[in-house]
Amino acid sequence: MPDSLYHRQREPLLVVISGPSGVGKDTVIQRMKERRLPIHFVVTATTRPARAGEVHGRDYFFVSTDQFAEMIEKDELLEYAHVYHDYKGIPKQQVREALASGHDVLMRIDVQGAAKIRQLTQGGAVLIFLTTSSEKELEERLRARKTETPEGLNLRIATARKELERLIEFDYCVVNHDMTVDDTVDKVIAIIEAEHSRVKPRKVRL
Amino acid sequence: MPDSLYHRQREPLLVVISGPSGVGKDTVIQRMKERRLPIHFVVTATTRPARAGEVHGRDYFFVSTDQFAEMIEKDELLEYAHVYHDYKGIPKQQVREALASGHDVLMRIDVQGAAKIRQLTQGGAVLIFLTTSSEKELEERLRARKTETPEGLNLRIATARKELERLIEFDYCVVNHDMTVDDTVDKVIAIIEAEHSRVKPRKVRL
Repeated sequence: MPDSLYHRQREPLLVVISGPSGVGKDTVIQRMKERRLPIHFVVTATTRPARAGEVHGRDYFFVSTDQFAEMIEKDELLEYAHVYHDYKGIPKQQVREALASGHDVLMRIDVQGAAKIRQLTQGGAVLIFLTTSSEKELEERLRARKTETPEGLNLRIATARKELERLIEFDYCVVNHDMTVDDTVDKVIAIIEAEHSRVKPRKVRL
Repeated sequence: MPDSLYHRQREPLLVVISGPSGVGKDTVIQRMKERRLPIHFVVTATTRPARAGEVHGRDYFFVSTDQFAEMIEKDELLEYAHVYHDYKGIPKQQVREALASGHDVLMRIDVQGAAKIRQLTQGGAVLIFLTTSSEKELEERLRARKTETPEGLNLRIATARKELERLIEFDYCVVNHDMTVDDTVDKVIAIIEAEHSRVKPRKVRL
C-alpha cells in the first residue's frame, strides 16, 4: 500500500478571485473574511486614494507613486498593473510567507493580473472568475457605485466587456447575484474544499 | 460579449463514489439521501442476498442469477462485475434517463467498476475515491461488520490493499472518518458544487 495515501500533505492553495469591476469581488472577500476561515487574504498595494471606510494595511496598502516605483525597482511585487490611472500590485514576500506557513492564500486581482498569475504559477493557482447574471446587472452596479465620472464609467463598462471574453482562461466561474453574496461565498469555499480533495493536487512555486 | 457566458446550461454530472469494501460507501450515500439533494441515486442490481434492513428497489435490485444473466444478454447494464461470488451491475437505462432529465446522477461502485466507467465516459464522470484514515481502521471496520467468514474477511483485506493502489485513476480522494460521516458528505457535496462551477464542464455521453 503506498505510504503517500495515508501521509498526504495538505498542499496550501493559491486562490485568485477575479472578474470585471463591479461584479462584487470586494464584497465577496469581505464576507469571506467574516467567516474566520483559515485563509490568508493578500493585502494589495495601490496608489489609488482610500475610499470611505477603507483601512490602510487591512483593505489595501495605500502607497505613493514614488513608493510604488521603489517596490517595482526592488522586485518586491509578484505582479502589478496600471489600471484606471492607478497602480496596483501584489507584494511577493507576503504571498510566499503565507504559503510557507501552510495557509491557503487568496488574492483579489483584475482579469489581466489573473492571467499573469496563471502563467507565473504554470497552472498551480486556482483561478476563479466572478461574474454577474447579466451584462445589464453589471452596468447597473457600476452606475450605482457613483465613484466614477461618466467617462470613467464608460471605460469600465467597455473594459468589462473585453474581460468577460477571457473567462476561458480561468478554472471556475461563479455568478455573484446581488442578493445572494453568501451563496457566492459558499461556492468559492466549495471550490477550495474540492481542490484540497484532488488526487493530483496543484503545486504553487513562486 | 459571448452569449454562452450568460446562457450556460447546467450540465448534469455523473458522480462515482468508490473505494475498498469497508470504507463506508453505503453509509455516506445513505446520509446524502437524507439531505434530500436533487440527485438521482442509482440503484444497483445484485445477485447477493439482502442484508438486514435492505429494501428491494431502494437499496438494490435483488435479482436471481438467471435474471442477471438475462440483463447481461440484453445489454441492459452499463457495467457489471463478479465480486466476492456475487454479481453487481448498473442498469444503463436508469442512468441515461436521470441524466436526460437534467439531474446529477450518483452511483456507488467498486474500484474496478469505477475504472470501467472512467474509460466508458472518457473522463466525463467525476470519480471520487473514499478511503479510511489508516489501513488499520479499514481492517477494523471489515472485522466489525461480522458478515464475513474468516476467509472472506482476508480476501476483502487483500483486495482493499490492491484497490488503494488505484487511487491515482480517480479525480478526488476523500477520507471518511468513522465519527464524521457528515464531514465526508460535505466534502462530496463541495466537489459536486465545484464541478458545476468549472469553466470547462465535463460532458457525459453514454
